Amino acid sequence: MEKQKVVLAYSGGLDTSVILKWLEEHYGYEVIAVCVDVGQEEDLVAVEKKALSTGASKAYVVDVTKEFITDYVFPTLKAGAVYEDDYLLGTSFARPLIAKKLVEIAEKEGAVAIAHGATGKGNDQVRFEATIKALNPFLKVIAPWRIWDLKSREDCIDYATKHGIPIPVTKKDPYSRDRNIWHLSHEGGNLESPWNEHDSSIYMMGVAPDKAPDTPAYVEIEFEKGIPTSVNGIAYDPVEMIHTLNKIGGAHGVGIIDIVENRLVGMKSRGVYETPGGTILYEAHKSLEKLTLDRSTMSFKKTVSEKYAQLVYDGLWFTPLKDALDQFVNSTQEYVTGKVRLKLYKGTCKAVATASPYSLYNEEFVTFGEDHVYNQKDAEGFINLFALPLTIRSLMKFENEKEAKKEKKAI
Amino acid sequence: MEKQKVVLAYSGGLDTSVILKWLEEHYGYEVIAVCVDVGQEEDLVAVEKKALSTGASKAYVVDVTKEFITDYVFPTLKAGAVYEDDYLLGTSFARPLIAKKLVEIAEKEGAVAIAHGATGKGNDQVRFEATIKALNPFLKVIAPWRIWDLKSREDCIDYATKHGIPIPVTKKDPYSRDRNIWHLSHEGGNLESPWNEHDSSIYMMGVAPDKAPDTPAYVEIEFEKGIPTSVNGIAYDPVEMIHTLNKIGGAHGVGIIDIVENRLVGMKSRGVYETPGGTILYEAHKSLEKLTLDRSTMSFKKTVSEKYAQLVYDGLWFTPLKDALDQFVNSTQEYVTGKVRLKLYKGTCKAVATASPYSLYNEEFVTFGEDHVYNQKDAEGFINLFALPLTIRSLMKFENEKEAKKEKKAI
Amino acid sequence: MEKQKVVLAYSGGLDTSVILKWLEEHYGYEVIAVCVDVGQEEDLVAVEKKALSTGASKAYVVDVTKEFITDYVFPTLKAGAVYEDDYLLGTSFARPLIAKKLVEIAEKEGAVAIAHGATGKGNDQVRFEATIKALNPFLKVIAPWRIWDLKSREDCIDYATKHGIPIPVTKKDPYSRDRNIWHLSHEGGNLESPWNEHDSSIYMMGVAPDKAPDTPAYVEIEFEKGIPTSVNGIAYDPVEMIHTLNKIGGAHGVGIIDIVENRLVGMKSRGVYETPGGTILYEAHKSLEKLTLDRSTMSFKKTVSEKYAQLVYDGLWFTPLKDALDQFVNSTQEYVTGKVRLKLYKGTCKAVATASPYSLYNEEFVTFGEDHVYNQKDAEGFINLFALPLTIRSLMKFENEKEAKKEKKAI
Amino acid sequence: MEKQKVVLAYSGGLDTSVILKWLEEHYGYEVIAVCVDVGQEEDLVAVEKKALSTGASKAYVVDVTKEFITDYVFPTLKAGAVYEDDYLLGTSFARPLIAKKLVEIAEKEGAVAIAHGATGKGNDQVRFEATIKALNPFLKVIAPWRIWDLKSREDCIDYATKHGIPIPVTKKDPYSRDRNIWHLSHEGGNLESPWNEHDSSIYMMGVAPDKAPDTPAYVEIEFEKGIPTSVNGIAYDPVEMIHTLNKIGGAHGVGIIDIVENRLVGMKSRGVYETPGGTILYEAHKSLEKLTLDRSTMSFKKTVSEKYAQLVYDGLWFTPLKDALDQFVNSTQEYVTGKVRLKLYKGTCKAVATASPYSLYNEEFVTFGEDHVYNQKDAEGFINLFALPLTIRSLMKFENEKEAKKEKKAI
Repeated sequence: MEKQKVVLAYSGGLDTSVILKWLEEHYGYEVIAVCVDVGQEEDLVAVEKKALSTGASKAYVVDVTKEFITDYVFPTLKAGAVYEDDYLLGTSFARPLIAKKLVEIAEKEGAVAIAHGATGKGNDQVRFEATIKALNPFLKVIAPWRIWDLKSREDCIDYATKHGIPIPVTKKDPYSRDRNIWHLSHEGGNLESPWNEHDSSIYMMGVAPDKAPDTPAYVEIEFEKGIPTSVNGIAYDPVEMIHTLNKIGGAHGVGIIDIVENRLVGMKSRGVYETPGGTILYEAHKSLEKLTLDRSTMSFKKTVSEKYAQLVYDGLWFTPLKDALDQFVNSTQEYVTGKVRLKLYKGTCKAVATASPYSLYNEEFVTFGEDHVYNQKDAEGFINLFALPLTIRSLMKFENEKEAKKEKKAI
Repeated sequence: MEKQKVVLAYSGGLDTSVILKWLEEHYGYEVIAVCVDVGQEEDLVAVEKKALSTGASKAYVVDVTKEFITDYVFPTLKAGAVYEDDYLLGTSFARPLIAKKLVEIAEKEGAVAIAHGATGKGNDQVRFEATIKALNPFLKVIAPWRIWDLKSREDCIDYATKHGIPIPVTKKDPYSRDRNIWHLSHEGGNLESPWNEHDSSIYMMGVAPDKAPDTPAYVEIEFEKGIPTSVNGIAYDPVEMIHTLNKIGGAHGVGIIDIVENRLVGMKSRGVYETPGGTILYEAHKSLEKLTLDRSTMSFKKTVSEKYAQLVYDGLWFTPLKDALDQFVNSTQEYVTGKVRLKLYKGTCKAVATASPYSLYNEEFVTFGEDHVYNQKDAEGFINLFALPLTIRSLMKFENEKEAKKEKKAI
Repeated sequence: MEKQKVVLAYSGGLDTSVILKWLEEHYGYEVIAVCVDVGQEEDLVAVEKKALSTGASKAYVVDVTKEFITDYVFPTLKAGAVYEDDYLLGTSFARPLIAKKLVEIAEKEGAVAIAHGATGKGNDQVRFEATIKALNPFLKVIAPWRIWDLKSREDCIDYATKHGIPIPVTKKDPYSRDRNIWHLSHEGGNLESPWNEHDSSIYMMGVAPDKAPDTPAYVEIEFEKGIPTSVNGIAYDPVEMIHTLNKIGGAHGVGIIDIVENRLVGMKSRGVYETPGGTILYEAHKSLEKLTLDRSTMSFKKTVSEKYAQLVYDGLWFTPLKDALDQFVNSTQEYVTGKVRLKLYKGTCKAVATASPYSLYNEEFVTFGEDHVYNQKDAEGFINLFALPLTIRSLMKFENEKEAKKEKKAI
Repeated sequence: MEKQKVVLAYSGGLDTSVILKWLEEHYGYEVIAVCVDVGQEEDLVAVEKKALSTGASKAYVVDVTKEFITDYVFPTLKAGAVYEDDYLLGTSFARPLIAKKLVEIAEKEGAVAIAHGATGKGNDQVRFEATIKALNPFLKVIAPWRIWDLKSREDCIDYATKHGIPIPVTKKDPYSRDRNIWHLSHEGGNLESPWNEHDSSIYMMGVAPDKAPDTPAYVEIEFEKGIPTSVNGIAYDPVEMIHTLNKIGGAHGVGIIDIVENRLVGMKSRGVYETPGGTILYEAHKSLEKLTLDRSTMSFKKTVSEKYAQLVYDGLWFTPLKDALDQFVNSTQEYVTGKVRLKLYKGTCKAVATASPYSLYNEEFVTFGEDHVYNQKDAEGFINLFALPLTIRSLMKFENEKEAKKEKKAI
């Protein structure tokens, strides 16, 4: 009888190598290892080789970096989605894409299950599994960390030794990390007490602000309908654009945050995130919107952004609500075209100038003197009606006080 | 017959001095000049003297700085209200307080009208007048800039010369400014083109980031139920606290923003704002909330913050909705008690550590290994039900596709 | 020299006839009368004739009933937009369409201005003028009721008599009304005291509930992507569908509301509205959405509905926010296809049965016994994580109480 | 060794009787049966007796009907909370109160666990358990339906027979019901297909609309700060008020809904709900708010209502967000004082007249003619500024089209 197949989200690290072996041992599955490249900057040839040598029947390495930027990062950028005021969703929106690839390969290979190495305490298990269920509810999901007896890195090392899995010789890193082209996260280690200041030596995508040059850098970014198209006058394809901005931002210590956040699974966690290029793009995009969106669109888009961020954070990418929000956002971006100049300096990134052919800022209206569109006399009527509810309420209260006094007198 | 009285919001500047005279001339009013001190750092004795010498029958100088901080600034800080993502509402919430004092004096003096020097293009006219209507709808409002023939500074100077009003000898400042203890705004001049980078020489409450010390400063702020109570271990009264934080923040180039914003009256304007101490407090307060508020409270409070900011910006301070939002906010602040350490460096201000006796962050839950509260096995059930709507929808789509294929075959 | 042209929104009634003459007299304009037919059921040939006889140089009668239903009513129905919980926006969304037609004719005719007969206290002036500004900001707007000396119906009659304008012989109607194919509104008269019960003799689109048949009627409506396509199995074009449903609904006393509402201009007003067919469609559409939309889409769509209703009520139809909301709504309607059976009886209209090929209701899941998708054991894990924030908070409080007791003891 | 104690939510029905025995058998627990009376109209003396005869060591019957109305129903009524547009939350808010009583008794008795008879597919398990965790996270929760082998009513009967538990002789009822003083729900049976019309013979709190009297009834309700205080001029205590209104409403077929709803656990279900008195109160309260709340408070309160309803539905009663929303709501109710007249007829319940000393409706403003507060001329200025963003956008588009034409020509 033929073995059933399982598709494993494989990174080449200790955990997923152990899982690979465990799936064979525990279920008798034929394991197909899939490493989805979202720009995590690892030696993927080595990962592939390791998968096969650890016992995978087949190993896929799939580069989806471009799809990641165009179909996941840019829509979220256009939405202006930020989780809990700070987090640019770097890990969150990579998960549904990875899961989508796993499903596609599982369907192609006729696998019956998908396995992943996310722990039972985090958001990623939800993001992976919600996506799998949304795309193919007939696939079984296996999350070994929730079910096996291995409870720690030490247990994994023991298991690996016993099964002849090569153990990485790198010295123990106290942090747990996730990296892709958009961002890098650090969790664990001494970050686990929120009263510890994090150590700037952990940064990997850029320097600490105090190590940045003493001279600021200027960057000019052009947008077309909300999508960044060029940096400093040079058009880039999406992947190269992010690489370029990561380099510039990282050199100036831009895009580091350190937050306590609410996980979807009900607990708080603390992390340090690096998003150098992304931070530049968000700042630029926001500034261009301030020039080109009207007040009420901006205000309601804020409500949409909040919901969008929550959906992305929660792994609810392939949902009808997410699709509908995208339609809203795309409509608002019709005129978000123009350019933004930003100044990067010692960890700061500020838009200093904006311009657009569709600017709704009109110098003439704002100036002190007369103009042809705006008649200052209109303000009186505006205020009278705008504040009419206040006037009416105030009259009501005066009237009631008068009555109360009358009654008092009568007594 | 006795003259009717008007209360004038008087600053001692050219505009309101001209208005003072014009009110007498135009309406035959007796003018009572009122200068409300919200920390604008001017020589108020001189202002009072000038009012009387320009023809006021009486001059009030009222120091409301403390009331400003405790009753206007702190509630807004607790609400986390920020207008259009950036503006800490410095001018906005000073206006209702000033107007409230004008109304109180008008009632005490038996005045029939209140006059102010705000232009017909800005938000301040609305904030003043909405407040007056909310507090006393029987008072007439006079806004000379909307009705007289004077169209420019030059017209004012001519009028002043003609009426013997002393003209300030300071050289012409291209910027229009508003200042109080919380903030300073710059508008006009070369800011009127959004493509011009603003000149850092305009700063008055602090230095430019590149002029700040090369060594970062650390500040530790304690909060009780959302209200800051001490800085670096020293308890301060509200006014001294803001002065202290302004000094520290200003020295490190903290709290400068440069934005295009949507005015309430329908146009966009551009301004540079300095809020050194306020920026520190907002960052600190936000970080403490991340430690002490649960996810759903934080998320809905965001909706409340947005509305709060809009009400404050629009001058709708004395409204039932604002009162109700305050009640909501106060309830959320019950446990926002603790301390925050911040690092200020070259224009950046970042919380680096937080602690609270009411922290909802629990180290034990987050760590990799076992704990007593959180059972990783629970995650499977959670995900299955959390994602059930996705599963159901996916099943529905598969079912429909199957039907479609059947129908196709049948044909 | 040629006379300048003005386009007048003309109804054939006393007011707009007087305005027609007044525009000639007051401005020397050549008046082009435009009567836009949105199903108000008047004798439009007579209106045209009267316009010309009263002095119009040209008279247009434009039937836009179909466009009204497909481009204004149906999008709003799909949005589920209801103003202040009750009002189905009957007058509101007719205004931008009428104004659009006025602008088109003004542009074609080379007119410099548009005049309308809306009063200075209502919403319609805003809806007309906001639309005109959105579509052609160079056109002047004239609203005679806000500027002329005529203050009442009596003044109008005097003016008409003086200028030979025929005065309608109908006896004085105490109510002010607006009618189109979708709805009919009554304001004024004894409705002006909210403590007066309205008189059911005013109804014009249907009978009072107690005059309705003693036997209920059933109606079955089919929808395709949120758009109603058939009634009782018969396909109708949009106009005929509304007429049909008005007849059925009106016969059973369906769709009458009596409300105090907040006008955009800051005051409250009271009105009785009849929307027989519309009420049936809203009820049917809502029920079908309950079957086909998932919980989070339904919930956020509610936020969108509220904003949509406010925009429509406020006359902000031609705005980018409205466009973006439409995109959101259309995306949600992808699977709102199916049929709804409703029971009409003595003023009630209730969906009693719903069906859809895209139903997300699954009988198998709900039943008491076992099923294949839903595992009851999952609920425990779900509840544990769903309620984890409550557990954590509760632990924090117990911990703090324990500390407090310890401290007390120590003292 | 002493037995550990468990507190069981006991109803006297077959299920909880079987659970009582099963808890003893399975865990060796001493079972304390608690029947919380929220107005379910059962013979509670018999319930108590049955608990003891089935093996409970102790039986509590706790009447919390009054607390239910004042602390759960009225706050929700003031909030205007309605789940998914229709459901008045009858079962939802009874659960946290019942669970609170269970926790109180468990603490008093020194029990280690609480058991309930809710199934693993419904909302009630979540509402019970979330409340228990919020109030005492150290108590164990036992939900037999999720863990035992009994899968159906038949299994329960077998178990009962085997253990000598008397089986109710009532003939099999196809529906599953929940009842309290506020409402009654019916689920299951032929309701499980949404295409089946429900049978009006199932109603228990009132008659079907077509069985109601041919003459309408009028009811007048007075409110003080959002709380109903009298009916038809007679003051009632809360419990008597609901009984009285249930009788009146039920007699006229008022308050029956039939909906498909989204359960918290991810599936849809269908139910018929009767809430005769509640429906009258909601309609009355809403109408009074229309008279006494200003537009922006009403609009934002809608957002609060939606969130409130979701929290109540989801069993998140004892949460900080719920507390904060209550504070908001209470603030808005300051002036929701006055009276409402309603007409009940054949299933309809409509407010026909409202009055309040704090009414914000002002007859003078609305009337056609002149008044002293509202100047129609103000409308022009209001519209010009209100619509200024539309004008500016329109000008921007015209400008861009002009440029486009120029460029085209140039080519």
